Amino acid sequence: MRKVADSTVRRLSLYLRYLEEFEHRGHATVSSDALATRGGTTSAQVRKDLSFFGSFGKRGLGYPVGDLARRLREILGLTRRYQLAVVGAGKIGGALVQYRGFRLRGFDIVAIFDSDPAKIGRTFDGLEVRDVAELESVLAEQPVDMGVIVVPGEQAQVIADRLVAAGVKAILNFAPAQLAVPDEVSLKNVNLALELEALSFTLANR
Amino acid sequence: MRKVADSTVRRLSLYLRYLEEFEHRGHATVSSDALATRGGTTSAQVRKDLSFFGSFGKRGLGYPVGDLARRLREILGLTRRYQLAVVGAGKIGGALVQYRGFRLRGFDIVAIFDSDPAKIGRTFDGLEVRDVAELESVLAEQPVDMGVIVVPGEQAQVIADRLVAAGVKAILNFAPAQLAVPDEVSLKNVNLALELEALSFTLANR
Repeated sequence: MRKVADSTVRRLSLYLRYLEEFEHRGHATVSSDALATRGGTTSAQVRKDLSFFGSFGKRGLGYPVGDLARRLREILGLTRRYQLAVVGAGKIGGALVQYRGFRLRGFDIVAIFDSDPAKIGRTFDGLEVRDVAELESVLAEQPVDMGVIVVPGEQAQVIADRLVAAGVKAILNFAPAQLAVPDEVSLKNVNLALELEALSFTLANR
Repeated sequence: MRKVADSTVRRLSLYLRYLEEFEHRGHATVSSDALATRGGTTSAQVRKDLSFFGSFGKRGLGYPVGDLARRLREILGLTRRYQLAVVGAGKIGGALVQYRGFRLRGFDIVAIFDSDPAKIGRTFDGLEVRDVAELESVLAEQPVDMGVIVVPGEQAQVIADRLVAAGVKAILNFAPAQLAVPDEVSLKNVNLALELEALSFTLANR
């Protein structure tokens, strides 16, 4: 398959959410204009994004909501479930385990780790925090598709290396560090503090 | 001031974290190579990023850790505190209020809102959840610098419009929607589910 830009994938996710709301309200078709508004783009871009993956909808009739939603879930790999391990059981790590939105979309957090003796043994929604020293043995028994890193910046690379060595092929990194991973491993970064600092930068430099 | 790319600002934040760790360990100088490793870039890029904001360090001696950290905090607007309002008191909204990392870096969450009667009146770290119907009156009395949107996608634009009308100049959006805001308002998006779906996309299409 041809290389698809991150920004395209992001818009597909936004279109899917909009389609699901439409489905929920009982609408049968949706226009590219309506999808464009939600995706923050133009209807020409919507048509281009979708044509990339095949032929959808009929000119003048809009897109069939149910069919397009199903196809987008296939494209985004959302027709199966994924097992996730979270490393770091602080406020954010704990909230991720308890957040129902992930499970609803097929992302099951099946393990959480920390190095802090005060956190090891605690449970979040019935999931016990394991000692990060046991990461390799736990993942050998219960393989995961994705690792979520929520540790301090200076520990993040070591954790990433250990997750990769344990066979993890996709990493979501919350730590304030730019991680190096092999080409075959996908990496996405989420950093709340960095986003806030990008905002404070604009407020300070306007 | 010249337009600075988002990617540059992001690297400045990463450099700052690295410098603060170095400061903490008592190091007086740091090389551009060391900063480059943490920022996921080259030492040439580090020198370019920093030269943009003035002259730092001496050839061959590296950068003075304390001075450079102080200058980066100035550049990033981190020498003052910011007041934040969070709209949406679910698991993620609640975790944000309780997360100490923001306060440590100067971001104080001073208000949290929800429309759910079951959530209004609850407290997170002593901060009471207010009815979102009172958003305008609360922010009139207690102005904030930034708004954080943690509501469902279909409600996000209305909340953004209300925050902007209330004078908010910077928005951090967690909702799965691409928001439209006036040019003078800064907007950053954090969407955990979208990042996970970008990862599932790569796993499904490898």
